[in-house]
Amino acid sequence: MAETANTDAILQPGERLDDLLSYDMRIIQSSEVFSFSLDAVLLARFAALPPRGRILDLCTGNGVIPLLLTTRTSACVDAVEIQPRLADMARRSIRLNGLEERISVIEDDLRAWTPPNGEYDAVTVNPPYMPLQSGDRKENIHQAMARHEIGCTLEDVVAACARCVKTGGRVSMVHRPSRLVEITEAMRRHRLEPKRMRFVHPRSDAEANMVLIDALKGGRPEVRLLPPIIVYKGDGRTYTEELLDIFYGRRTELADSTGKQEEQR
Amino acid sequence: MAETANTDAILQPGERLDDLLSYDMRIIQSSEVFSFSLDAVLLARFAALPPRGRILDLCTGNGVIPLLLTTRTSACVDAVEIQPRLADMARRSIRLNGLEERISVIEDDLRAWTPPNGEYDAVTVNPPYMPLQSGDRKENIHQAMARHEIGCTLEDVVAACARCVKTGGRVSMVHRPSRLVEITEAMRRHRLEPKRMRFVHPRSDAEANMVLIDALKGGRPEVRLLPPIIVYKGDGRTYTEELLDIFYGRRTELADSTGKQEEQR
Repeated sequence: MAETANTDAILQPGERLDDLLSYDMRIIQSSEVFSFSLDAVLLARFAALPPRGRILDLCTGNGVIPLLLTTRTSACVDAVEIQPRLADMARRSIRLNGLEERISVIEDDLRAWTPPNGEYDAVTVNPPYMPLQSGDRKENIHQAMARHEIGCTLEDVVAACARCVKTGGRVSMVHRPSRLVEITEAMRRHRLEPKRMRFVHPRSDAEANMVLIDALKGGRPEVRLLPPIIVYKGDGRTYTEELLDIFYGRRTELADSTGKQEEQR
Repeated sequence: MAETANTDAILQPGERLDDLLSYDMRIIQSSEVFSFSLDAVLLARFAALPPRGRILDLCTGNGVIPLLLTTRTSACVDAVEIQPRLADMARRSIRLNGLEERISVIEDDLRAWTPPNGEYDAVTVNPPYMPLQSGDRKENIHQAMARHEIGCTLEDVVAACARCVKTGGRVSMVHRPSRLVEITEAMRRHRLEPKRMRFVHPRSDAEANMVLIDALKGGRPEVRLLPPIIVYKGDGRTYTEELLDIFYGRRTELADSTGKQEEQR
């Protein structure tokens, strides 16, 4: 957490400036509007990325995923966000980190938006997890849109990923395991073949509460199930060494660079 | 391993008589024809079973799964096997354990066979894992049919499960994780909704090499991802305590009795 006089000017009421993990980056957050969670960090570590080219991040929120991706690839990232308030937060964080040349924020509805010039080498997305009718709705509109399928359904998200990625390109998503079968079925319907999955369990004896999925557009059916990620030690409070290594980018085997081309189509 | 004078009469050349885990049961095995593996034991522990009623085990081999199921439920088990040699081994093991009233062996092709009198409360299946064109084919016909999709494809197996189980009944399968997406897609196409999954990893840092799936006929889409099963400790040779507990039936939370009716359809 770092807040200095010269950054006050870029913060709106209720916003704060957080250090972005161990990188020399900072990010504008707000507990009322949007703060990133473990899900986004794990997706940014897991995603299959090209060493260069063009990447798209859908449902980008405050831009945490694009910011983290710039530490793993030289590719340029387009970040789509439907909420003007969040798109503005993302733009200011990008400027604050001097990454305007690497990341562009596109304020648009992913259901309607189509890439202006060609297709992407990779797409990342941390979509809203909960169906429209579920959960409590005490949240404000910013929180509700990030959590519930108000602005887009799972089907909309998968369709947009498939539309924007090139054949042979990768789509990486984080979601709830409870919706795994819906996700893989929707992906396949859109020619996105799941190739790698990884489940995240709060403890080694607990059910998974997160799944990371990497799909290859036009790939052949065969999926690898990576080792589980266990978040907390037995005490339920202390992070495991493994999680901290992943969180701070000290483990690289989580990632799968598409540059390696180890996948057969 | 126990072999006595009075059991010699029931063994064919090349066969041996093994103790069936910690139960007071014995099973006829043969390294050339068929011996059960960890997969079958884990499925027998994981399967969703009714406390009574009728259970079907497809691709039963030497009958290891039906034998183990009798320790968890009072239901009667019909066991289908296409290979006469294996069906005969299964029948002799059943007789040897005095379980003729509980388990019936049906020597038939699951593609053609339909239940003579009504539908089943639960189905278990440990099908051949490998597509017809894959792998080496040095095995004899018994081994090849148990491992490769010679006698039935994944689609045939799922179709047979769906045809034989009643609506609201359960289908439990063990398979290779690489085929997960194909399996769940085939299940859904046949109105079998995956409700519980569990991945088995040889070590905590290794990819999964086995998946256990439990589906509910006519269920609604929502799946639980149970804690991973880790087979070996870090040395890669010693079984974990957890695995031994499951193997010897000392842990019961792996199983999900359909008697509880915790699932919503």
